[in-house]
Amino acid sequence: MKIVVIGAGNLATRLALALKGSGHHLVQLFSRTEQSASVLADLVNCPFTTDLKALDREADLYLLAVTDSAVAETTEQFDFGSRMVAHTAGSLSIEVLAKHCRNFGVFYPLQTFSKGREVSFEDIPICIEANSQDNLQTLRKLAESLSKDVREIDSLQRRQIHLSAVFVCNFVNHFYAIGETLVNEKSMDFGILKPLIRETAMKAMEFSPSTVQTGPAVRNNRQIIDHHLTMLADHPDWQELYGLISEDIFKTQNKE
Amino acid sequence: MKIVVIGAGNLATRLALALKGSGHHLVQLFSRTEQSASVLADLVNCPFTTDLKALDREADLYLLAVTDSAVAETTEQFDFGSRMVAHTAGSLSIEVLAKHCRNFGVFYPLQTFSKGREVSFEDIPICIEANSQDNLQTLRKLAESLSKDVREIDSLQRRQIHLSAVFVCNFVNHFYAIGETLVNEKSMDFGILKPLIRETAMKAMEFSPSTVQTGPAVRNNRQIIDHHLTMLADHPDWQELYGLISEDIFKTQNKE
Repeated sequence: MKIVVIGAGNLATRLALALKGSGHHLVQLFSRTEQSASVLADLVNCPFTTDLKALDREADLYLLAVTDSAVAETTEQFDFGSRMVAHTAGSLSIEVLAKHCRNFGVFYPLQTFSKGREVSFEDIPICIEANSQDNLQTLRKLAESLSKDVREIDSLQRRQIHLSAVFVCNFVNHFYAIGETLVNEKSMDFGILKPLIRETAMKAMEFSPSTVQTGPAVRNNRQIIDHHLTMLADHPDWQELYGLISEDIFKTQNKE
Repeated sequence: MKIVVIGAGNLATRLALALKGSGHHLVQLFSRTEQSASVLADLVNCPFTTDLKALDREADLYLLAVTDSAVAETTEQFDFGSRMVAHTAGSLSIEVLAKHCRNFGVFYPLQTFSKGREVSFEDIPICIEANSQDNLQTLRKLAESLSKDVREIDSLQRRQIHLSAVFVCNFVNHFYAIGETLVNEKSMDFGILKPLIRETAMKAMEFSPSTVQTGPAVRNNRQIIDHHLTMLADHPDWQELYGLISEDIFKTQNKE
């Protein structure tokens, strides 16, 4: 499949590498930023452009791996004609492409990507959606060449996934950062928390998380909770979060 | 080493199994609940009692793996004489043992334990503290027979670890549960989030979490944040949490 990747951020980088690795033909990369474009083009050994007008017109698929606001902009500024266009955004409806594209869809790999961290696409759920069965098949074939977990997910579901991902990834990572700050404050290194972080995640692979909730909040252990709140006196924001989440855990656990 | 384990909960179970597996001599188990005591005694092939007065008086070490409030109670109700006693609680000071014991310490394996899930002690940080260098050596020897990560940690530090663990384990697990509820609400299974959960944890093993924070909050992407808040209208508690944590992420990331 002849593919043009538009974007050179974390997702574009990981996606371009995975596509290349699965034997697809990356015909061109586009990024407004020459530096990012050239770094990624080097990595995947493919020509690049920073000028939208110079976009290759003969590709089978244009993958928009750009910020949400740039998705619509790109389709306004370049006429893709009848060529297939797919965006890769969790929170954008497929409809954002309807105005300027004739064949379009969504290709959303549900994962957190960093430029500097390798990730195997094989286990990543790829959520696809398209404006026709034919286009869906095109995206399905591409997705299945990368991953064994390909799912047809509509825009409302994808949005809900993205919302859930904010909780289980972004917010979770922030709590890792809070944990790191707290142990550092008492002259300990973050390493001491790592086996716990790993096991907590692994447990969620095996059990439904609500059935394995532990900690002082489950039984509303006031002695520990109040002491922890006191210890957070220098971090009023975290103190507030601690109280609210503890209440929410107690309510959730005692509803079930 | 001849050890009596007091308690038959998650930690007592996992600890008794690990001690047995490392060749220690479990001379007796104690639990107030006959059912729990007999199940665990069966597992580790060891006698048990539910009567504190019938506690073996010849052990080298009594490990108190009971709820926080039961630690002091146990030492009030049984005279350990000069025998070594250690509690296993994150939030209790070593001083809780000082009133009734002569040789005492803390043996705190930093992990989340479930009766039904096997866990290798080898990588679990074991935090030790004792009222004398001799007693510290006793605990260190025991800890090193189970784990390659043994650390001398004082009561203030251990309390801070426990507070951190509430964030990186209990609160994180609650957010997994929120994610599960949200995807279920739109007819999707929790499995779709698992690769993301795993990768988020694995990334924290490799990088300092605050340096790899992603998501709409980092750049204060109001369009996505406001949309997510609207989507959480049926979950006002989660809506409030979403707003507060997003603000905290933005503040934290833009301070550094």
